[in-house]
Amino acid sequence: MCQLLGMNANKPTDLTFSFTGFSQRAGKTGDHVDGWGMAFFEDHGVRHFVDYQSAIISPIADVIRRYPIKSTNVIAHIRKATQGKVSLPNCHPFVRELWGNYWVFAHNGDLKTFRPRLHSHFHPVGTTDSEHAFCWLMQELHKSHAGVPSIQELTLTLRELAAEISPHGTFNFLLSNGEALWAHATTHLCYLERAWPFSKASLSDEDLSIDFAERNQPGDRTAIVVTAPLTHNEQWTHFQSGELKVFVDGAHCDY
Amino acid sequence: MCQLLGMNANKPTDLTFSFTGFSQRAGKTGDHVDGWGMAFFEDHGVRHFVDYQSAIISPIADVIRRYPIKSTNVIAHIRKATQGKVSLPNCHPFVRELWGNYWVFAHNGDLKTFRPRLHSHFHPVGTTDSEHAFCWLMQELHKSHAGVPSIQELTLTLRELAAEISPHGTFNFLLSNGEALWAHATTHLCYLERAWPFSKASLSDEDLSIDFAERNQPGDRTAIVVTAPLTHNEQWTHFQSGELKVFVDGAHCDY
Repeated sequence: MCQLLGMNANKPTDLTFSFTGFSQRAGKTGDHVDGWGMAFFEDHGVRHFVDYQSAIISPIADVIRRYPIKSTNVIAHIRKATQGKVSLPNCHPFVRELWGNYWVFAHNGDLKTFRPRLHSHFHPVGTTDSEHAFCWLMQELHKSHAGVPSIQELTLTLRELAAEISPHGTFNFLLSNGEALWAHATTHLCYLERAWPFSKASLSDEDLSIDFAERNQPGDRTAIVVTAPLTHNEQWTHFQSGELKVFVDGAHCDY
Repeated sequence: MCQLLGMNANKPTDLTFSFTGFSQRAGKTGDHVDGWGMAFFEDHGVRHFVDYQSAIISPIADVIRRYPIKSTNVIAHIRKATQGKVSLPNCHPFVRELWGNYWVFAHNGDLKTFRPRLHSHFHPVGTTDSEHAFCWLMQELHKSHAGVPSIQELTLTLRELAAEISPHGTFNFLLSNGEALWAHATTHLCYLERAWPFSKASLSDEDLSIDFAERNQPGDRTAIVVTAPLTHNEQWTHFQSGELKVFVDGAHCDY
């Protein structure tokens, strides 16, 4: 299986602290050593990093831990290969363009029986069931909306599409178009929102603490979604199985 | 304007030497300081790096100069903004998926009067004339071929499409699908092929030499395409205006 990490914030925010803890699971506190990837949205653009080396030894992952890339939406993934060989085209997250926006997707789980025909413009480059499911999601989103839909409309469509895929296996995923972060859980996913008054957080996977009150302003707000809680002194909310949540401007929306 | 650098090789090869010289033009030996980008094909996957910082000060560019990423097809770009603001979505190279392959494109020049209607699935995310032209190329390639065409067929189609765009301005570009590297010149572009017997090369932009005979085997072959010669002791061939060349397995093909 794999692990997922997502961030949605109302202002460009760096994820250095969370990624430092998360990437320990790629060999130190976990065995997710078969590649990693991370995509940062910035002004509709995407910085997209993938590597089939573990996030512990990858020189690019090392730069990301040290160099604070500020972003409003981030999706990261560390992989333990179950479907598809260990190679660059099989590293999540995957990126496609739809309606003049980049869309980023990462998946944790197996969808062994989900191989629908792809009859539109989105085709997988690698061999994972995850990228196949992503291409199908993009195809169906495009078919379902004549123009560019609102976040609320997209959420309703994605909830229907996720429910179609879910019976085929385990479908924990993160998806973002740079404006919203969608998260769907079959098994493990939890989230928290950091907002005023900020508090001190201590990583579960590394001996590192941070006082968010010192680094944030009163209006700042960040939501973090992750496979397993990253900190041991914050309140994480676990997803119900089958739940799809959407985060905008650093907060969970009630769509 | 901008500068382009491309590589096509018959075996995974690192571009550290060439990129070290090329990136000096982003502030030291040239004024191309408005961002840079680089895409490395590897086993059909792509490592895609973009930054709106100059390639001289970007921490990611620094890792690429120090960490040899081996690839068979590379496209790099350093930008001096003339069209579109300095921002991440406007950094070349651009990436799209077509026929289950990633396609990478970078452009040097202006196409101020080329804004054809994009009626298919490819739309620009940023505001550059370059990305608009790339989306049109992808659209027309898709329309021109029912199935996945051969490199020769793609070359013939691209030659026709490039001739349609060229009258609208300056259209020096590099394009790759991970198998071939296409290069088209309106003004400046030159190339060389490195093969047995390899010789020593000295950079024009930096006091650095390398003896390729020490690092290569007899069967290795690499083609380098660049806006202006990177070395002062090798034989560079200049493109004619309007020429589109294709490189496969490290050599120029006579298609």
